[in-house]
Amino acid sequence: MAETMKTHGAGTLRAADVGTEVTLAGWVGRRRDHGGVVFVDLRDASGIVQVVLNPDDAPASEQELSSLRMEYCISISGLVHLRPDDMANPELPTGEVEVVANTMTVLSPSETLPFQIDDRIEVDEARRLQYRYLDLRRPSMTENLRARSKVIRAMRNVMDDLGFMEVETPTLIASTPEGARDMLVPSRLRKGNFYALPQSPQLFKQLLMIGGVERYYQVARCYRDEDLRADRQLEFTQLDFEGSFWGQEDVLATLEAISTRVTKDLRGIDVDQPFPRLTWHQAMERYGTDKPDIRFDMQITDLSDVFAETGFKAFSGVLASGGSIRGINAGALGLSRSGLDGLSARAQELGAKGLVWMVTEDDGGFRSPVAKFLSETELEEISTASAAEPGDVVLIVADETQTVLEVLGQIRLEVGQPDGHDELAYLFVVDFPVFERNEDGDFVALHHPFTAPVDVREMSEDPGHAISKAYDLVLNGSELGSGSVRIHDPAVQAKVFETLGISDEDAERRFGWFLEALRYGTPPHAGFAIGIDRLVAILQNAPNIREVIPFPKTQTGADPLTGSPSRVDDDQLRELGVEVRPAVMAEWAVDEAAGD
Amino acid sequence: MAETMKTHGAGTLRAADVGTEVTLAGWVGRRRDHGGVVFVDLRDASGIVQVVLNPDDAPASEQELSSLRMEYCISISGLVHLRPDDMANPELPTGEVEVVANTMTVLSPSETLPFQIDDRIEVDEARRLQYRYLDLRRPSMTENLRARSKVIRAMRNVMDDLGFMEVETPTLIASTPEGARDMLVPSRLRKGNFYALPQSPQLFKQLLMIGGVERYYQVARCYRDEDLRADRQLEFTQLDFEGSFWGQEDVLATLEAISTRVTKDLRGIDVDQPFPRLTWHQAMERYGTDKPDIRFDMQITDLSDVFAETGFKAFSGVLASGGSIRGINAGALGLSRSGLDGLSARAQELGAKGLVWMVTEDDGGFRSPVAKFLSETELEEISTASAAEPGDVVLIVADETQTVLEVLGQIRLEVGQPDGHDELAYLFVVDFPVFERNEDGDFVALHHPFTAPVDVREMSEDPGHAISKAYDLVLNGSELGSGSVRIHDPAVQAKVFETLGISDEDAERRFGWFLEALRYGTPPHAGFAIGIDRLVAILQNAPNIREVIPFPKTQTGADPLTGSPSRVDDDQLRELGVEVRPAVMAEWAVDEAAGD
Repeated sequence: MAETMKTHGAGTLRAADVGTEVTLAGWVGRRRDHGGVVFVDLRDASGIVQVVLNPDDAPASEQELSSLRMEYCISISGLVHLRPDDMANPELPTGEVEVVANTMTVLSPSETLPFQIDDRIEVDEARRLQYRYLDLRRPSMTENLRARSKVIRAMRNVMDDLGFMEVETPTLIASTPEGARDMLVPSRLRKGNFYALPQSPQLFKQLLMIGGVERYYQVARCYRDEDLRADRQLEFTQLDFEGSFWGQEDVLATLEAISTRVTKDLRGIDVDQPFPRLTWHQAMERYGTDKPDIRFDMQITDLSDVFAETGFKAFSGVLASGGSIRGINAGALGLSRSGLDGLSARAQELGAKGLVWMVTEDDGGFRSPVAKFLSETELEEISTASAAEPGDVVLIVADETQTVLEVLGQIRLEVGQPDGHDELAYLFVVDFPVFERNEDGDFVALHHPFTAPVDVREMSEDPGHAISKAYDLVLNGSELGSGSVRIHDPAVQAKVFETLGISDEDAERRFGWFLEALRYGTPPHAGFAIGIDRLVAILQNAPNIREVIPFPKTQTGADPLTGSPSRVDDDQLRELGVEVRPAVMAEWAVDEAAGD
Repeated sequence: MAETMKTHGAGTLRAADVGTEVTLAGWVGRRRDHGGVVFVDLRDASGIVQVVLNPDDAPASEQELSSLRMEYCISISGLVHLRPDDMANPELPTGEVEVVANTMTVLSPSETLPFQIDDRIEVDEARRLQYRYLDLRRPSMTENLRARSKVIRAMRNVMDDLGFMEVETPTLIASTPEGARDMLVPSRLRKGNFYALPQSPQLFKQLLMIGGVERYYQVARCYRDEDLRADRQLEFTQLDFEGSFWGQEDVLATLEAISTRVTKDLRGIDVDQPFPRLTWHQAMERYGTDKPDIRFDMQITDLSDVFAETGFKAFSGVLASGGSIRGINAGALGLSRSGLDGLSARAQELGAKGLVWMVTEDDGGFRSPVAKFLSETELEEISTASAAEPGDVVLIVADETQTVLEVLGQIRLEVGQPDGHDELAYLFVVDFPVFERNEDGDFVALHHPFTAPVDVREMSEDPGHAISKAYDLVLNGSELGSGSVRIHDPAVQAKVFETLGISDEDAERRFGWFLEALRYGTPPHAGFAIGIDRLVAILQNAPNIREVIPFPKTQTGADPLTGSPSRVDDDQLRELGVEVRPAVMAEWAVDEAAGD
């Protein structure tokens, strides 16, 4: 086979190339026959061009020409011609020209496809994943791959320009405190022992700071063995960076530089800087979430004062038991009575006792099932507090404050969030609490236990209200990542462990090596990690991150293409010093007996 | 703490900065006291500058000044001064200046170091790895990290310039045919099943070609659970790339572009193109290895014809039994008789029956223990064939041909290989055999079973001599990586499996999904993978790859810093459906009883 199988990209040919002899290689898209002449849309990575195969020019045997089918991989040589004006295709960048072939070679035939390579045809996702290599030929998927590579390149360019050094941290590491979500790798050389795959390069990047690196970044593969909710994967990629002699402002400025460059490079959009900021407390109070979508306003208003003296039992009872009453002005929703009642049902589904809807009438009054229980003053104050115009729907929830905020925050998204991604609203959420309480009422670290508190004494005295130097980057209501100023003082680190209820011995056993490292002149440092899968998905307006991952797993962690994960020979496991539990094997036996 | 902890890099200050007020942050290197004034070498990522702490300027309390010790992390503000001419330090880029501090803050104190941060002091490697974060502060290690990042950046720039797209392939994959060396990851969602970590992205990059990507690259983390010989790691990094509608020449040209750019960027050296090439057969015949170090000549000469009629039994016996007699002219080695005998002993150690040394005398004759057994003609012909000048030592081995080549190849390196890395000799080795025989005499793929044979019919008829489209890149006698033109025809792939003794059912079970993928218009494609650890080690003249890996494992796969791999709770394993084998636990019990 000649070394040069291709002189031009199919999608690059233009009127200026007319008269050029070209050799192209790619795949057969649509094929049309007109009076013995075969017209083929030849597709390669650069795009599509029309190729004319005229038996009179004898580009190939008649048999070959007639056998040519969808997705055959072919190479052709021929001359670029201008199409007659009335035959030009303005939809195609190459639409003014066509290539008249004088030779044609089938490089590889294709069997009948399991589905058509066409963005307009919807295919079941399991099938798409099973034939991912065909799915990737669809223009939208090609575009997603290209976008991902472009985003990562833009990130690297920013980091390089800012003087960061790329450093690779290990992926076979020691199991970490959040060990329950660690994926493990049995060691063959030290049987019965395990490596863990990293959930993040957190401790290693801190070690790099201690090691004097000062400016580190890495596009890092990370692993988390979590239940695969709608939009997670066992392995994911993040842009991880850290700086020494750095504080929060340095990190946020770097994030602005990265985000604006990425958005500009991929979407051509100039994002305003500085990004807006909300404290965690403001975000929760106004939007009922720590990752507000601020493309639309619709803030939550506290109406508790309005109902301080109310005679409406459902409201007064909530206030008496320490709850609150809050509402949003959802604007003109255009919903029928049953549509509005649907919102009440949705609020109950989300965990609230209920939701009150009030439609603003032309005279400023309200149409609502509860209007009759409320005083004239109350109605007026609702109207004022929520700035309700005629037609606007005010939605009110009365319950425990956290429930009220969560439910209104979610309803807000469901009635207000725009579909598209034409507007990109970046936002910093800052001043996160150091701790939250878990289901047992114990303190757990809200970010991770290496996050610096704003005030160590405050943290010791009132851990429930202590604020940390942690911050999130949010885009269109999705958390893109989080970061913090880290603890660089071993005494502060010990204090955090103490508050978390980790005993000295336990801390020593689990993090002794890290606590020791902190004792050798650790610089103040801070950093961040941006989830690349999520960022690219939002920028590409993809419905989920699997669309922007070349070979993702399903929601049960399987790969329908290669069949992973799979059983392995017991011999192979023996080498690793492990075996499948008898209980699991017993289940297999039952399944097999049942014909599974 | 103020946001700006640092206005300048310590190592960046020059005479032009005199009079500038600067804030620096870094670590205390050497410290000298002169009449109450403290001189500190302040080191940060950019280098070192001298800081003057004069109690008269009250930069800090006397107590703080006197407590300042090695590797304290401090920040100082002060004015850049010119040093008096006789005090300048020409060894330091900042040697003309010093910073006279007016404030000094200890950011973090340091405990007494386990070893000094000094390149001139040799420290036990286990200890260096245990305190890697301190080891990384040594200038030579900082330099290695920087070099690694520079090499990878140069590679990415070349790939980007050549229009390659970076694509991430999964690292939780199905176990592969070379499964015995796979590292496994138990699945929690599908208990008793396992993912494998990739030994390379081989099949996924071929799927990308089938998917129409055309130009792919990735800086990929790969895993191989092999016995950690001198210079391997469980995880390693390679630059992996692949192209469609490509042949061998396209790959080699790309490799030349990458290698020359990397060498230029890191070492400032212009490497000549094209790189020299040897066929695998030539390499074996001339250098006794498939990765010759061609920085020095010293080729192997076949002397079998010289001894066709010899009366020297040791030689005639070898020839009679089908072996061969070959030699190298090792030049003037300057070895004593016992040194020369040492080479014979070394050859025996390497598996040869022996080695004959012959020192060329001034009159052209030879001094050698075997000279008396050889005829005058034989001696003359040895002299001619090996172009021996007076003083040159000719080393001869007679044995089975493969042994002769291997032993002479190794001896050649030991007597001839230069120490340094000032000369960089890149080399392509091409035309590798398709198969080699394993210990049982069965054919196994020399590269991997997806490598295209040059001629399919030849391969079927005479697999032992069939040549493949596989090629290696060699630098200074180390294999940097290998690649090949891949099989794109499923019928050829099936034929290779057949020759390898893999039954149709077995092929279907193990690679069915891949064989199916080949059937949908697979383009001809070819690629390569460069081992980055090895390349950087050679370019940096590092004695082993651990020197250029930020956090390597020891030769038993352990990390002395974090204690990985380690035992994990049985609860955690239960979640994964596996357990440690009773036999391993029994060994632990014995060890523990013995007080281990």
